[in-house]
Amino acid sequence: MSSDPQILEPELSEESAPTTRCRILAVAERSFREIGYQKTTVADIAKTLKMSPANVYRFFDSKKAINEAVVERVTGEIEALLMKMADAPGLSAEARLRNSIAALHRDTSGRWNGYPRIHEMIEAAMGESWEVCRHHVDRIAAVFERILRDGVGTGEFAAADPAVTARCIQAAIVRHTHPLLVSQLPQMPEPSLDQMIDFVLRSLRP
Amino acid sequence: MSSDPQILEPELSEESAPTTRCRILAVAERSFREIGYQKTTVADIAKTLKMSPANVYRFFDSKKAINEAVVERVTGEIEALLMKMADAPGLSAEARLRNSIAALHRDTSGRWNGYPRIHEMIEAAMGESWEVCRHHVDRIAAVFERILRDGVGTGEFAAADPAVTARCIQAAIVRHTHPLLVSQLPQMPEPSLDQMIDFVLRSLRP
Repeated sequence: MSSDPQILEPELSEESAPTTRCRILAVAERSFREIGYQKTTVADIAKTLKMSPANVYRFFDSKKAINEAVVERVTGEIEALLMKMADAPGLSAEARLRNSIAALHRDTSGRWNGYPRIHEMIEAAMGESWEVCRHHVDRIAAVFERILRDGVGTGEFAAADPAVTARCIQAAIVRHTHPLLVSQLPQMPEPSLDQMIDFVLRSLRP
Repeated sequence: MSSDPQILEPELSEESAPTTRCRILAVAERSFREIGYQKTTVADIAKTLKMSPANVYRFFDSKKAINEAVVERVTGEIEALLMKMADAPGLSAEARLRNSIAALHRDTSGRWNGYPRIHEMIEAAMGESWEVCRHHVDRIAAVFERILRDGVGTGEFAAADPAVTARCIQAAIVRHTHPLLVSQLPQMPEPSLDQMIDFVLRSLRP
């Protein structure tokens, strides 16, 4: 349309690249969820999007790179949700901790529910792309640590080393927040989330 | 060798059946560990034992049944070890709880170490043979509950509902005792087992 493709092309590319990237991720996530990470190929993703595999590779150099971007998006959403609960104004540290844990639990229970093949994607991320998972775990621990320090400041909590205690809280709720374990909860309903949170809070008493 | 096979045969069968059963389980467990549950077939197990698949099927009617027997043997060993720690004479309830958790952690860390394919066997058991897993979890919870009640009796612990608290302890240590999570520990070393046990014990303070 333009007489000067050298000007137009970078503009078009800047406008469409994020959209294409997002479309690739949306299709990949759906395929990982419904067909499974193992059986999904970059060629399948390209086909669904009616583009060439080469075009997908312009954005992501491997299926692993696509999975990392999917996991980063998902973990980003979870962290945003967590932050909202952790920073809710006018609440005690205890209420903020309780709401934060409940939000993580609700998200995991709802997000993957009904997609048994999602395990493959999570296991692939935990194996091939551990750094992405570790950063997510670190950011959640940082949020817990912040609530803990607030609670220690107001005298609600006691925690000699809030960084370590935050990691312990995180480990204590893994049964209720780790996607690979949450799917088993209906078969092993005890302890309930509330029972577990009460147990954690007891450990934080001054 | 005998002139009366009707007498000899049952004797021989009684003597050799448990041995054959054990040999099948030993070969199956090794194959699940080294080759993986998915790729192991009953025919492979039979071949290794130089017997016919039909003979394996005399003892176990499916690969699933073999896996259940393997898992029952393994969980039986773990429970025996746990019971030894839980019932150690002359120790405080706190020491018995600490030793019990440490024993579970050490067993899981050592037993599956270096066998990434063991995940398949455990996932198969958790999926196809959930009852076997559930009974194991229930028996461990019962041991924790017993220690808790002793500790409540001596005033070492407070636990309004020891059955629920036992389940909470179990959930709190899943990061350090569940075979599917323990393999990740080197990548995520905090909290250490001692930090986690201290966190749990804080929750039990009167």
